[in-house]
Amino acid sequence: MQVLKTHKTFEGKTQFWEHESVSTKTKMKFSTFIPAGPVRGCLIWLSGLTCTDENFITKAGAQKVLAEKGLMVICPDTSPRGLQLPQEHDSWDFGSGASFYLDATTPGYRDHYRMETYIADELHSLIQKEFNVPANKISIFGHSMGGHGALTLGLRHPQKFVSVSAFSPIVNPVNAPWGVKAFTGYLGENKTVWAEHDATELVRSGKRHPQALLVDQGGDDEFLTKGQLLTDNLTKACKEASQKLEVNMREGYDHSYYFISSFVENHIEFHSRLL
Amino acid sequence: MQVLKTHKTFEGKTQFWEHESVSTKTKMKFSTFIPAGPVRGCLIWLSGLTCTDENFITKAGAQKVLAEKGLMVICPDTSPRGLQLPQEHDSWDFGSGASFYLDATTPGYRDHYRMETYIADELHSLIQKEFNVPANKISIFGHSMGGHGALTLGLRHPQKFVSVSAFSPIVNPVNAPWGVKAFTGYLGENKTVWAEHDATELVRSGKRHPQALLVDQGGDDEFLTKGQLLTDNLTKACKEASQKLEVNMREGYDHSYYFISSFVENHIEFHSRLL
Repeated sequence: MQVLKTHKTFEGKTQFWEHESVSTKTKMKFSTFIPAGPVRGCLIWLSGLTCTDENFITKAGAQKVLAEKGLMVICPDTSPRGLQLPQEHDSWDFGSGASFYLDATTPGYRDHYRMETYIADELHSLIQKEFNVPANKISIFGHSMGGHGALTLGLRHPQKFVSVSAFSPIVNPVNAPWGVKAFTGYLGENKTVWAEHDATELVRSGKRHPQALLVDQGGDDEFLTKGQLLTDNLTKACKEASQKLEVNMREGYDHSYYFISSFVENHIEFHSRLL
Repeated sequence: MQVLKTHKTFEGKTQFWEHESVSTKTKMKFSTFIPAGPVRGCLIWLSGLTCTDENFITKAGAQKVLAEKGLMVICPDTSPRGLQLPQEHDSWDFGSGASFYLDATTPGYRDHYRMETYIADELHSLIQKEFNVPANKISIFGHSMGGHGALTLGLRHPQKFVSVSAFSPIVNPVNAPWGVKAFTGYLGENKTVWAEHDATELVRSGKRHPQALLVDQGGDDEFLTKGQLLTDNLTKACKEASQKLEVNMREGYDHSYYFISSFVENHIEFHSRLL
């Protein structure tokens, strides 16, 4: 594990890292913010389509409240890099920068796009070993595709993630164009398998998280209008299944980091209370 | 004046604008954040070498405290764009993205690189007319080359800028490699003229600002080590001239926006008290 860059920030450290991943069999990058004092817990942030390990750490304005709460954050890249798989670099919503945080099963992708294993096992262990955070002090949140990742990984591994929240998540990808394209490419045509990586379908099939899930969604988000996010489907499924869920519809806000920065403090406080 | 993009942020608006500048005879871009409630005043932010109107508004994390204080910010681009002047695009520290916020006098540049007039006259008027901020409620701050811009424009036009602050400013460009290159290109070989656009030399020659100048400087800033910033020269000149100056040396911090984000709240509070 190698530090590429360090920037002192709010008395703590913003750092950029690279390591050899056994899950993806590639180098993987991630960024961290580590507060100056004792670290009470770790938040894993999963970014959205086209992002890297840099977006959240440069644009969310989260370091101040993380420092105040004594929490670190780790922001992995959104896919393996440096490969040349079929169609991997042809579009912005599939392949590189668009892993959807699952373990792929299709030829080519199944050898490297193992992002669920990378996040829930490898990175989870690395946080404990390299950053001395106990296994029961790790939570997860994310944005858009990363909101989907946080919700699905949180529901599939509730014992690993103390609390789960999301900004503008893709909550029902089996019914959204982005999800249909990605799941076809990573999982093939069998839609029964797709449902295992869809937050709404997971709740419908009996998966639960012991804590309330927190979702913030911009009311003027173009991808909500275009039917990519489908927030109401998760609300309905959680209500029917008695999974606690808080959805804050934020009037006038869009899909950008300006929206995230406006409410990131609320999300960090939510995780801080439960960690 | 045309809005290119609007993003709701902390209940206010982050916006990107374009207008035809009479000073530069080009289109000019700037970004703004305007809080939701009454606007008490406006801060002009001047960015550093290679930056555009986007850096501060996306990376400084300033919107929250601006919203709390009822202050707007306007962040102009760092030079005219869309031109093809001699050597204009050959290096990152001269020409496009590197105006040094002065009115050039050399052939070619003198027709368009009129950034002092653009900021101190045109933008100053635009803030009053388009954003309804009184002329006596405008302050200025900036980073690196933009810190130089804030200090020199503040000292040259103290009646126009209520308060002046800077992060990692180039305080004595006539004695720094960046400054020598830029001033030669924009002002020619006459060093008497150079001194009129150098904060340290302006203080030495009798220019004053009625308020204390505020400077934050990272102790691990590579450009401080390389002799580009020369912070101590301004400290000495201000002491000798009884110009009030507060310099905060911040141990371990570098030249990046991670540094700026860590102390931007202090700077906004400084301006807020005086506006």
